[in-house]
Amino acid sequence: MGRVTERRNVIRIRDGAVSTRPDTLVAEEPLEIRLGGKPLAITMRTPGDDFALAAGFLVSEGVLASAEDLANIVYCAGATDDGGNTYNIVDVRLADGVPVPDITLERNVYTTSSCGLCGKASLDAVRTQARWALDAGPESAFRIEPATLAALPDRLRAAQRVFERTGGLHAAALFRADGELLDIREDVGRHNAVDKIVGRALQQGLLPLSSAVLMVSGRASFELAQKAVMAGIPVLAAVSAPSSLAVDLAAETGLTLVGFLRGSSMNVYAGEHRLALRPAAATG
Amino acid sequence: MGRVTERRNVIRIRDGAVSTRPDTLVAEEPLEIRLGGKPLAITMRTPGDDFALAAGFLVSEGVLASAEDLANIVYCAGATDDGGNTYNIVDVRLADGVPVPDITLERNVYTTSSCGLCGKASLDAVRTQARWALDAGPESAFRIEPATLAALPDRLRAAQRVFERTGGLHAAALFRADGELLDIREDVGRHNAVDKIVGRALQQGLLPLSSAVLMVSGRASFELAQKAVMAGIPVLAAVSAPSSLAVDLAAETGLTLVGFLRGSSMNVYAGEHRLALRPAAATG
Repeated sequence: MGRVTERRNVIRIRDGAVSTRPDTLVAEEPLEIRLGGKPLAITMRTPGDDFALAAGFLVSEGVLASAEDLANIVYCAGATDDGGNTYNIVDVRLADGVPVPDITLERNVYTTSSCGLCGKASLDAVRTQARWALDAGPESAFRIEPATLAALPDRLRAAQRVFERTGGLHAAALFRADGELLDIREDVGRHNAVDKIVGRALQQGLLPLSSAVLMVSGRASFELAQKAVMAGIPVLAAVSAPSSLAVDLAAETGLTLVGFLRGSSMNVYAGEHRLALRPAAATG
Repeated sequence: MGRVTERRNVIRIRDGAVSTRPDTLVAEEPLEIRLGGKPLAITMRTPGDDFALAAGFLVSEGVLASAEDLANIVYCAGATDDGGNTYNIVDVRLADGVPVPDITLERNVYTTSSCGLCGKASLDAVRTQARWALDAGPESAFRIEPATLAALPDRLRAAQRVFERTGGLHAAALFRADGELLDIREDVGRHNAVDKIVGRALQQGLLPLSSAVLMVSGRASFELAQKAVMAGIPVLAAVSAPSSLAVDLAAETGLTLVGFLRGSSMNVYAGEHRLALRPAAATG
């Protein structure tokens, strides 16, 4: 649809000198996600991969777990003043037999906050909703070398095409344990980029993503850790810091959580059994 | 409440050397905002200034415009397993005569998307909901020097205390036209930091903030531009890029929108009449 970026004139000021030139901006438009015709959520997103975004969002919400759960996704005929489709409303139809969640706000509030909306309640909700247990023990099959992780930020940057032009996009990428890039999505919202990744994997029948690393360009919030767990991804790596609740969630679910992944250094906040670590003395 | 940061053990890997040490993380907890006892929204936020956050959120939603609109805000007695208040639910009571909005999701969807949820509908909604018109013409009273703007990022950084320790917080700050810092808030969510700023201003009877610059540490999304307009703030400045819809909103409402504010350079995307600009030739 060619709306990932848009052009606008901008006044540049450099050391007091003023000039006008066209600039490339990241496109941002609202997307309404409907489930069986009923409005479920609105997200401000970068247009593109909208069906994947909707599907991935519903994986995070515990509604979808496989391509078979999905009947179809269509754009609704929302129209602009001149009659064109805005491509900003999608409707998701579930396959026969897949339970349609009650989607009122009040219901959502109470199912995710059984004990007064403490962080612990949020953790409990994720743990009970997740379809796949991450293999949490030391016998876990998935392993990744720290040196492989350390190489991911450069690969992420190299694969980011839009960011270079706009400076305005978050990226999320999936990598194999050997560092090979499986998929990358960019969006004005970091959670959208992850939903697009997970939704595409669902559409391709790849859930759970039990042999992949999810890498994000910014921070690791609770929400992103939650999305990783709901998709069965064992390792989440972020360029910047995690939040306390993201670390708690990782510790409770067995997710490997890596932050401040920069150059050859990183911090491991949980799930270190998936990293092939050698004691400091052995590296000298 | 002392929950702005939390301590966790972290495994640090530096050039292959592994060590364990305590690390400071930004705290993240869900906050449920109720209006007259009914759940309205949940946001993942950094605890602290919760009443201001709730008040500012309701300014952005067009519910509150002055301290007189507010009867009171209280913590609800949501309890943890051991009976303690979680301080994660606040209830906002409006003053007599202030209209209580219909807060169902479906209603929210349709009032903000009259023409099929195109960006234009979102712009229209903000324009019609805003209580204060930004003085958009060249006769506008508020002016700021580019050199003053250029000094704001350093002042923002200097005023950020938590960020230095965690690397995980977004900041929002209010400055006067002469560059003096009026207020600064930090939060794991950029929109929360702005809501806290706006809510504190409302509580102090300072809305509309017609003589202030809002500076944010990251990008300028549609949502942040919307919050600035709803609070009557004439200038929004961001360290990073704006989105296309943020620029459109700024152009339609008369908001001055500055992006990539770094060192002595910046990009002006809209509302340049509030900046004292000199042609490039005059600066040589």
